[in-house]
Amino acid sequence: MKTIKSIGTMRKISLSHLRNGEKIGFVPTMGYLHDGHLSLLKKSKQENDITVLSIFVNPTQFAPNEDFDSYPRDFKRDEKLAASEGADYVFYPSIKKMYPDNFSTFVESETISRILEGEFRPSHFRGVLTIVAKLINIVMPDIMYLGQKDAQQAAILTKMAADLNFRTAIKVMPVIRDKNGLALSSRNARLTKNDYITALQLNKTLKLGKNIAEEIGDVNTKRLTLQLKKYITEFGDIKLDYIACRDCITFEEPVNIENKTYILIAARVGKVRLIDNMIVKPKK
Amino acid sequence: MKTIKSIGTMRKISLSHLRNGEKIGFVPTMGYLHDGHLSLLKKSKQENDITVLSIFVNPTQFAPNEDFDSYPRDFKRDEKLAASEGADYVFYPSIKKMYPDNFSTFVESETISRILEGEFRPSHFRGVLTIVAKLINIVMPDIMYLGQKDAQQAAILTKMAADLNFRTAIKVMPVIRDKNGLALSSRNARLTKNDYITALQLNKTLKLGKNIAEEIGDVNTKRLTLQLKKYITEFGDIKLDYIACRDCITFEEPVNIENKTYILIAARVGKVRLIDNMIVKPKK
Repeated sequence: MKTIKSIGTMRKISLSHLRNGEKIGFVPTMGYLHDGHLSLLKKSKQENDITVLSIFVNPTQFAPNEDFDSYPRDFKRDEKLAASEGADYVFYPSIKKMYPDNFSTFVESETISRILEGEFRPSHFRGVLTIVAKLINIVMPDIMYLGQKDAQQAAILTKMAADLNFRTAIKVMPVIRDKNGLALSSRNARLTKNDYITALQLNKTLKLGKNIAEEIGDVNTKRLTLQLKKYITEFGDIKLDYIACRDCITFEEPVNIENKTYILIAARVGKVRLIDNMIVKPKK
Repeated sequence: MKTIKSIGTMRKISLSHLRNGEKIGFVPTMGYLHDGHLSLLKKSKQENDITVLSIFVNPTQFAPNEDFDSYPRDFKRDEKLAASEGADYVFYPSIKKMYPDNFSTFVESETISRILEGEFRPSHFRGVLTIVAKLINIVMPDIMYLGQKDAQQAAILTKMAADLNFRTAIKVMPVIRDKNGLALSSRNARLTKNDYITALQLNKTLKLGKNIAEEIGDVNTKRLTLQLKKYITEFGDIKLDYIACRDCITFEEPVNIENKTYILIAARVGKVRLIDNMIVKPKK
């Protein structure tokens, strides 16, 4: 495995693999790798000739009051993990090279980026779209792998790839959870023991929602989210940002769950903001 | 020469040339080709293995009150001209394929896109950046050729390519003028005989400015633009939008012309809005 810090070198490598007719898989990450990232890496290894994993904590997707500084980082550990999973290249550029002085071009999305995460983190998706456009242009992948934990992000990036005609296909892989059901996230490293117990409530709430919709058959989304809000806010230590039901592709809010629908949740537990989601498939 | 209407086909063709190790040159146009476009085509033919010319009158770069509907179009004529100049492919997609329903991702630029043309045409550059990002992703060129007549557009696209790490290099080729000095533009077709005579004043004004700065040595930009405004507005038939001096790379306004600097002009003559510019190189 090679670690590449230069944008120019990464592009040359990708272009040469592309010219060799090899298929390039790409896993963009902000590092502090966990089994969620590694599941993407494994899938990319299976489906491509070459796999590139990028590690870049992207400043433009954090607002000034957010956790850019405290976001966990451990490059040496990440490098070992990526190597042991068989990544061919780790792309690890500097902030200064990715955002030189006078950087002034951004990719923006209307509609999906304004709701949910976009409401609580107004410039977040602009930062995500811009960095991913940059990374795709440098790595030139055939397939990019994203985790379903960031479902809204995955939907917005899938829309970007279609709208801007990137040749890259996007695959969204299932949420990976720990043995207690907590969705893996690099931010979990910052949970205290008590916070961890509280955080398990997110998954429980989603499971309850899925159960109500799929087993009980109560698919009215207003009633459902109201019920789940009541359930989760009984835990005083959780500050809920939102619970919402959204169509898996359009991210529109259905009146009743009739197609594949996400139940999405965002909440602050201690100093950590967590998101999670679950797909509800109505019985037809 | 082949005419390609399908996005998927164009991409497959480009990818196959890319994989063959061939160099792809690209000339994006809105059609109604003139010698300015053809000079770009000739240059691309010289410098690349394959040349793609695109023809697409891009609706997102026109405001509702602008001349999208009356913009001149003649595809059959363009196709012949492109073939006679040796283009390998003409890419001619439909609006519906390029902007399907629910299209919602845009590329935007801060700084340079807010001034001059951006002030008079507020969403113009967003449309230009978005369509060119799309076209680059489809055609995957090594080099894209642009005309200096649209100098601000060329500067913004050059900045986009750098900021978003497109692998495409951008070359800006000189303004081509008719025998009377009028900068070639597809919009010239809409000038009446009287308007044509009036429109020649744009070039004369720029030449006067270049002369004052280079020969007389009067390089203070405030004084210079004031003088040129007085000169051009003596022609009652011209509605001036702006005359301005801008650094050729940063598009910042210098106090005195010390580096390569554009004198830029935009004006309405009859029903037609025209732009033109000239580079001033100060003697050192």
